[in-house]
Amino acid sequence: MPEVIPADSVGLVEPKAIRFDQSLPLNCGEQLDSFQLMIETYGELNPARSNAVLICHALSGHHHAAGYHSMEDRKPGWWDNCIGPGKPIDTKRFFVVALNNLGGCHGSTGPTSHNPRTGKAYGPDFPVVTVADWVSSQAMLADYLGIEQWAAVVGGSLGGMQTLQWSIAYPERLRHAIIIASAARLSAQNIAFNEVARQAIMSDDQFFGGRYLEENSIPRKGLGLARMVGHITYLSDDAMGSKFGRELKNEGFSYDYNVEFQIESYLRYQGESFSGSFDANTYLLMTRALDYFDPASEYENSLSNALSRSTAKFFLASFSTDWRFSPERSREIVDALMDAGKDVTYLEVDAPQGHDAFLIDIPRYMRGLAAYMNRVAQECL
Amino acid sequence: MPEVIPADSVGLVEPKAIRFDQSLPLNCGEQLDSFQLMIETYGELNPARSNAVLICHALSGHHHAAGYHSMEDRKPGWWDNCIGPGKPIDTKRFFVVALNNLGGCHGSTGPTSHNPRTGKAYGPDFPVVTVADWVSSQAMLADYLGIEQWAAVVGGSLGGMQTLQWSIAYPERLRHAIIIASAARLSAQNIAFNEVARQAIMSDDQFFGGRYLEENSIPRKGLGLARMVGHITYLSDDAMGSKFGRELKNEGFSYDYNVEFQIESYLRYQGESFSGSFDANTYLLMTRALDYFDPASEYENSLSNALSRSTAKFFLASFSTDWRFSPERSREIVDALMDAGKDVTYLEVDAPQGHDAFLIDIPRYMRGLAAYMNRVAQECL
Repeated sequence: MPEVIPADSVGLVEPKAIRFDQSLPLNCGEQLDSFQLMIETYGELNPARSNAVLICHALSGHHHAAGYHSMEDRKPGWWDNCIGPGKPIDTKRFFVVALNNLGGCHGSTGPTSHNPRTGKAYGPDFPVVTVADWVSSQAMLADYLGIEQWAAVVGGSLGGMQTLQWSIAYPERLRHAIIIASAARLSAQNIAFNEVARQAIMSDDQFFGGRYLEENSIPRKGLGLARMVGHITYLSDDAMGSKFGRELKNEGFSYDYNVEFQIESYLRYQGESFSGSFDANTYLLMTRALDYFDPASEYENSLSNALSRSTAKFFLASFSTDWRFSPERSREIVDALMDAGKDVTYLEVDAPQGHDAFLIDIPRYMRGLAAYMNRVAQECL
Repeated sequence: MPEVIPADSVGLVEPKAIRFDQSLPLNCGEQLDSFQLMIETYGELNPARSNAVLICHALSGHHHAAGYHSMEDRKPGWWDNCIGPGKPIDTKRFFVVALNNLGGCHGSTGPTSHNPRTGKAYGPDFPVVTVADWVSSQAMLADYLGIEQWAAVVGGSLGGMQTLQWSIAYPERLRHAIIIASAARLSAQNIAFNEVARQAIMSDDQFFGGRYLEENSIPRKGLGLARMVGHITYLSDDAMGSKFGRELKNEGFSYDYNVEFQIESYLRYQGESFSGSFDANTYLLMTRALDYFDPASEYENSLSNALSRSTAKFFLASFSTDWRFSPERSREIVDALMDAGKDVTYLEVDAPQGHDAFLIDIPRYMRGLAAYMNRVAQECL
């Protein structure tokens, strides 16, 4: 809880639900007749409407990217270190828009929402959405907000995939694409981890084929397991080692299957707290969106062909110990962009934190992003 | 099924149960009043009893390391490519002993065995055993077989930990310690993966606190999940990529949570077939033995101090893409051995297969191991 709001915070913010009564056709062949997106905005749109920045979230993210909802909040938004007055994404200069993606569980239409066709929660009947679907819905949001062209679309991890998709699907609607700790598609190992997470959720006896809300239950254990697996892949081996090592929970061993090591305690806590606050069907859907994303597949597996129509300038960053989306995966995108003759800036940051680094205040990363955003801001004038 | 037994096979072999009616005190404070070990032997013990080689198995291994149980067997023992006439562990020269460890589920006393105190299967009442306990029981087996000193103790992964423990606990009872793709202790990340596996098993609604056999059930889904997680860590990202990539199961996507990618199909199959053939309580126990192993911890965290009394000569091998027990982990052992002034040979093999490489016919690995075993054999004459 902040006793006072820090000077470099966007302060108290209020989410806003935007209703769309237009139909949205989806990649899977289905369509949503209407939907809602939950958003937050920080800073002010300039008269030229040229300073808008879209923040795309990752697997478990949402619209609350910066600031506080109340003075009782224990923590600010998930990317508060990056967004605010004087911060790399400077709200004195930019009008920042963050949303909860379609299929999410933080207020945008998703599996926990009311399905007008059945009168119940969508649950497993919510269609599988893709990164391209998200970007289509974000373009409708841009229309709603009167933003013809984003100064920048920004995202880390799965958010970076949305940024990449923006540059391919709506090349004229963004000037800069900022892609952090991301990849142009999942590897077999990435898909494998997602599959373990989904199997953990779907094999929970409280999953009820996805209709757990109708049963007044949630697949708490399965979702907790999925989060535990996720967490392992977010941290580097070294980061886990220096944070927990082989430290014991108690003095000496109990020789049983209760918590013996601190790392076990940490993972169980992460799993339990997540499963109380996130929707299992949304988790399935988000991992599937990750799996499916592969823009090169429609261009004879050539990413540079896929990017050929892009007109944005690109900034990419990756982190040395990220083994979920390693620097090599970012370099693939950089190489494809160079092959396609695009303007690309690439920052590889030496950081011990693994994939999670993209959320962390790492001076070289923050300075690099701030310098690039400064360039973006100068073009907004 | 072999139509004819290959000439370089140990041929048809028969496991043998060895009963020990001596009590075995365990690290956890409990003791087993009596127990049984299931073993197989290949080759002949020489008159000097100097050519015996002990094979220690890894997480899901057992006593059936080489040869066939019948002409109907689809596959030979798990290390058949390494053990046999003319193979690196040459059964024309060595008397090879393979066993199923205590707590196992392939015939040695373990959670599925009859508990004389209750008249039922041990289940969760089977004590947690450690690598040191295994080595104690293996020493009793050596006594039973009349083997005062092993020519070599050999093991990969968790088996390598047993070899390391032999050299510390019974320095005079082995001449060579052969440690492949192993580590002197688990990292936090290693423990984290084990914890996910255990939580998957224990949160299965068919686990019944470990008393699933009494309920005529098995925690099939949980054990399958545990195996899926394990498999991901056994393969390198590259190996998975070249084996499966993003290959689809069917043409085009179904946009659901059934199998879309080949890697999903492979993992589900691995999980399902394993859960039908392995005991869940044994899996818990084996992962805990891995977690606990840390011989340096009793020597002020100095592995070289722990190894100071060892008199064996050491051979270690590791594989470039093994990220479960990376070459760095083997080098830690090599460094500690050199600090302690021991005789050590180290082979780092460039191999794309990840941790699984230790089970695979990789020419440089096989040649290196064969060359070293040739040296071991010459000392047996």
